[in-house]
Amino acid sequence: MTDATGALQQYLHENIPLSRQMGVEVKVATPEQVQLFAPLGPNINHHQTVFGGSGAVLATLAAWSVLHLRLRSEPFATHLVIQRSSMEYDRPIPGDFEAVCRFADASEWSRFRSTLERRGRARITLNAYLLYTELEMGSFVGDFVALTQPDRRS
Amino acid sequence: MTDATGALQQYLHENIPLSRQMGVEVKVATPEQVQLFAPLGPNINHHQTVFGGSGAVLATLAAWSVLHLRLRSEPFATHLVIQRSSMEYDRPIPGDFEAVCRFADASEWSRFRSTLERRGRARITLNAYLLYTELEMGSFVGDFVALTQPDRRS
Repeated sequence: MTDATGALQQYLHENIPLSRQMGVEVKVATPEQVQLFAPLGPNINHHQTVFGGSGAVLATLAAWSVLHLRLRSEPFATHLVIQRSSMEYDRPIPGDFEAVCRFADASEWSRFRSTLERRGRARITLNAYLLYTELEMGSFVGDFVALTQPDRRS
Repeated sequence: MTDATGALQQYLHENIPLSRQMGVEVKVATPEQVQLFAPLGPNINHHQTVFGGSGAVLATLAAWSVLHLRLRSEPFATHLVIQRSSMEYDRPIPGDFEAVCRFADASEWSRFRSTLERRGRARITLNAYLLYTELEMGSFVGDFVALTQPDRRS
């Protein structure tokens, strides 16, 4: 575990207690990719597979974390909220699973960042995927809104 | 708490342990309406409001529960899964919250039920809403698929 993965995991567990209850572990935490792991046990359903709600939560956290890591390095404080999301559940997940969000679109980030600075508010869309033994089992799309704010509560 | 609400709450807590960790309580459990409550504490985020993922989970559980209650009274065993869902987060929820799913469309149920019997598989779409002191704070749409199956694992 690197400093970055440990710091993100601690942040999630302390600030979003549901992530701790789900047993979420941070595997990758860079501004280009966040990958989160969750064990089946606390996330099981009555079919002995991953409860869909847990899948949606892990994907939401992965996408949110990419933006959190990126915004943290900006010189202005931001308030980040999710505005809408959708999940496609392609197939049942029969064991421990992961969610990955990759974001490396420099021009899209530049647009988002300049809108945020100019208007104090900007929206960005991120995709994430649910993985089981590296197979894609579901997909997530989320629209997030960031607002600049005078205090450091971000 | 009526027998029906107590039975559904016990079923959720036993079969979907995340519902217990979230402190989910069943307030209404009829084939026409399921209303679920969750306290802020275990579902809080870094803004001291409800974590969006918890809102999505509670709405998913409310909609799923309506179908669960309806399918349980059918003469055939079914396997019920969520296929896709979307959430609109209208505003931050600053305290304990609820999710409600109402379904009283007899003709839509009849179509779903007859497709399920005829083809062994049918899809149905349900809406649910997040409530805070009776105000609507978000909305959910979920597509669920039911499959008939020979055994009683439903």
